[in-house]
Amino acid sequence: MQVTEIIGILAGVFTTIAALPQIITAIRNRACKDVSPIMFIILIIGVGLWTIYGIMKEDWPIIVTNGISTILNGSMLFLIFKFK
Amino acid sequence: MQVTEIIGILAGVFTTIAALPQIITAIRNRACKDVSPIMFIILIIGVGLWTIYGIMKEDWPIIVTNGISTILNGSMLFLIFKFK
Repeated sequence: MQVTEIIGILAGVFTTIAALPQIITAIRNRACKDVSPIMFIILIIGVGLWTIYGIMKEDWPIIVTNGISTILNGSMLFLIFKFK
Repeated sequence: MQVTEIIGILAGVFTTIAALPQIITAIRNRACKDVSPIMFIILIIGVGLWTIYGIMKEDWPIIVTNGISTILNGSMLFLIFKFK
């Protein structure tokens, strides 16, 4: 495996799981004060479009990483309104 | 321009600017309570690695979108510590 490929995979893993610590913080604090719901709405549209892009190009890594990201950011948006 | 291409560009624009509303919220509230700094650290590492990946592949769209994203997420992390 090439160095470039390894960097690409690592980059994909980090950007995919980024919302996870924010979800944990929200559940722990039972609050989402100062967290922007618009940020997560824009993220959901963005990674949702990337997922559609992946489906149209039949590109599995794009579908899987952005699919997971859509679910995580969607969960976070749900928490923002739950703890409002 | 193909539909797939347009979806890809839109997806890129949305994921690139996502941190902007969170930055505006932080500056307006002068607070970042319940905002996870770990989320932004992971995002910076992720989009930073995507930028390096873009440089190694000489792929300008990847460099520009992730470069902007690195600056925006870096600014947000700075605000989290400033308003702590």
